[in-house]
Amino acid sequence: MFQLAPELARDCFVVTELPLCRVLLMNDSQYPWLILVPKVEGTREIIDLSEAQQLQLWQESAQVSRILQSLFNADKLNVAALGNMVPQLHIHHIARFKTDVAWPKPVWGQHPAVAYSDDAAQALIEKLQQALN
Amino acid sequence: MFQLAPELARDCFVVTELPLCRVLLMNDSQYPWLILVPKVEGTREIIDLSEAQQLQLWQESAQVSRILQSLFNADKLNVAALGNMVPQLHIHHIARFKTDVAWPKPVWGQHPAVAYSDDAAQALIEKLQQALN
Repeated sequence: MFQLAPELARDCFVVTELPLCRVLLMNDSQYPWLILVPKVEGTREIIDLSEAQQLQLWQESAQVSRILQSLFNADKLNVAALGNMVPQLHIHHIARFKTDVAWPKPVWGQHPAVAYSDDAAQALIEKLQQALN
Repeated sequence: MFQLAPELARDCFVVTELPLCRVLLMNDSQYPWLILVPKVEGTREIIDLSEAQQLQLWQESAQVSRILQSLFNADKLNVAALGNMVPQLHIHHIARFKTDVAWPKPVWGQHPAVAYSDDAAQALIEKLQQALN
C-alpha cells in the first residue's frame, strides 16, 4: 500500500489528490514549491512506473507547471526528480524568481526553510486547490 | 533555427541526435551525466513544447535513463530541468552513486568539473552511441 515518506509528510502540506499523484506544498515560503508523489508503492525512479503511469505523471506535471506559471508568473520553473535523500519518487516543481534567496542556484540545501504562517499556508493551499480541481 | 546554447556547447560533447533531442555528455568525469536538449528554437520550459513534443521528450528521457541504469548501475538517477543559468531548455540525466563526490547533494555548483581524458571521452561516447542507436 502506498504510504508517503515520513520526511515529505513532515516538511509538506497535502494540497490535493490527482489521478496518479498526491500534490504537496513544501512548507517553505521562500519559493512556491509543489511536489508530485506518484501513489505507487515502492517507486524510486520515473522509469519504475509503467508507460501509462509515466504518461499520466507528465500530464500532471504539465498541469502543475502551468498553474505555477499562471499563479506566480515565475522567471523560471525548476522541475526535478532527485531523491538522493528521500528515495521515494517525488518530482519537485518550483517557481523561481531572479529575486529569490537562492537564485540562480538550485534551492536544495541553500537556505533553511522559512515556514508559512498558518493563515498564509491555508490561503495558498485553497488557491492551489481551486486551480487544480 | 535551433542553435545549441554556447555554455552547453562549451561544457559538453555531442553524443548523438534523437528525433527530438540532441544528446550531450557533460565533460565531467565525476558523474555519468547526459543532457537532452530539444531541438526546438526558443524553448525555455517543458510546457513550451507541444503535447506531441512533450510525449517524445519523455520517451527519449526514459530511454536515456534506462541506458544510464544499465551501463552504470547507479544508486539513483537525477532527472532535472533547471535552466536558471542557461535558459535554453535542457534536461539533466545524472547517474548518482553513494560514493560520488557530491552525494547526497545535487551536483550543481558543488565541485568543479573534472574533464575526461581524450581517450576516456571517446570510449564513453562510443559506448553511449551504441546503446542509443
